[in-house]
Amino acid sequence: MNTELSIHTNGQGLHEITSEVRQVVQDVKIADGLCTLFVRHTSASLTIQENADPSARHDLEQWLCRLVPENDPEFTHTHEGPDDMPSHIKSALTATTLSIPIMNGSLALGTWQGIYLWEHRSDTHNRRVLVNLLSSNQ
Amino acid sequence: MNTELSIHTNGQGLHEITSEVRQVVQDVKIADGLCTLFVRHTSASLTIQENADPSARHDLEQWLCRLVPENDPEFTHTHEGPDDMPSHIKSALTATTLSIPIMNGSLALGTWQGIYLWEHRSDTHNRRVLVNLLSSNQ
Amino acid sequence: MNTELSIHTNGQGLHEITSEVRQVVQDVKIADGLCTLFVRHTSASLTIQENADPSARHDLEQWLCRLVPENDPEFTHTHEGPDDMPSHIKSALTATTLSIPIMNGSLALGTWQGIYLWEHRSDTHNRRVLVNLLSSNQ
Repeated sequence: MNTELSIHTNGQGLHEITSEVRQVVQDVKIADGLCTLFVRHTSASLTIQENADPSARHDLEQWLCRLVPENDPEFTHTHEGPDDMPSHIKSALTATTLSIPIMNGSLALGTWQGIYLWEHRSDTHNRRVLVNLLSSNQ
Repeated sequence: MNTELSIHTNGQGLHEITSEVRQVVQDVKIADGLCTLFVRHTSASLTIQENADPSARHDLEQWLCRLVPENDPEFTHTHEGPDDMPSHIKSALTATTLSIPIMNGSLALGTWQGIYLWEHRSDTHNRRVLVNLLSSNQ
Repeated sequence: MNTELSIHTNGQGLHEITSEVRQVVQDVKIADGLCTLFVRHTSASLTIQENADPSARHDLEQWLCRLVPENDPEFTHTHEGPDDMPSHIKSALTATTLSIPIMNGSLALGTWQGIYLWEHRSDTHNRRVLVNLLSSNQ
């Protein structure tokens, strides 16, 4: 079963979607199975990161922006703006898809894990994330 | 169900396999489920990237080659050639496995998404990619 | 079906878990399906890498430590020690989850592929890795 989430982003950074995904899993009432997330874009990605201290996400975002700076003189794919080519590279280095086990009807995330949509473009966007659910007990 | 694709590569770069994967999905006639790709090598990987403008893939490949240069004086694993150790690192930074939802009998890729085998070795290779299909309606 | 592995790590580096995962798959007697691994932490990750020559894993670990050095003056998330923020970044750049097809009752790894838990912290830890199994023949 697939459910599409539409996530509004407002510039670069990590946007938490854990509660939206949890809601989809709860609604379907799968006791034991697998939840796979898939982002339908190549300039945004997914990550599971620490959900407690926002400074970890801040440093993660800043580090990646330093690793993949805009206005690299070697870039040839530049007509969509200076944040476009870095966004493709950042997506390739992180995840387009994530699979999380479902146990006892819930996502089996660790205590400190949250699910994030990682927006790599500067402008506002509506990002589509598919939530695919498979049951072990069909 | 698993189907193995054999992909001939001719040096480093992104090799599109979207149509081969779509064909496997269509042949099996799964209406709703999950397609998982798995590359059976540690010197080639998988990515989902923009399928429109080839300059994006060119810049992505060039950027990764600059991040992980050959002939790093710290490398000790050098007996298989200068492109060997960078190929393992590039594989670790990208994806060995990808999962794409199946909706209405088709891969639920976004409009601009293509599936690529990313060859990291310089020589020609035949790369084996498994296409694993699971149905939600078994 | 989900089985949790508890993996004891003793400092940074790649810790092979292939045999532990193979054992879980064999015990469940799934002929054809999908095995998904999920690490329940944000400072350790997963990778599939060459299982033959240990020098490849040594160089991989050293390269990533050079890419993400400790004591970066830009880091603000520093109260858990100098290896904490690099561990989150290294996790984001590698994999929290991996899916491996099951064929003929076994993991369909390539000849030279091993599964590794990648510990990014310096201290000893007990790391929890979920092994999720789905059968194609339910």
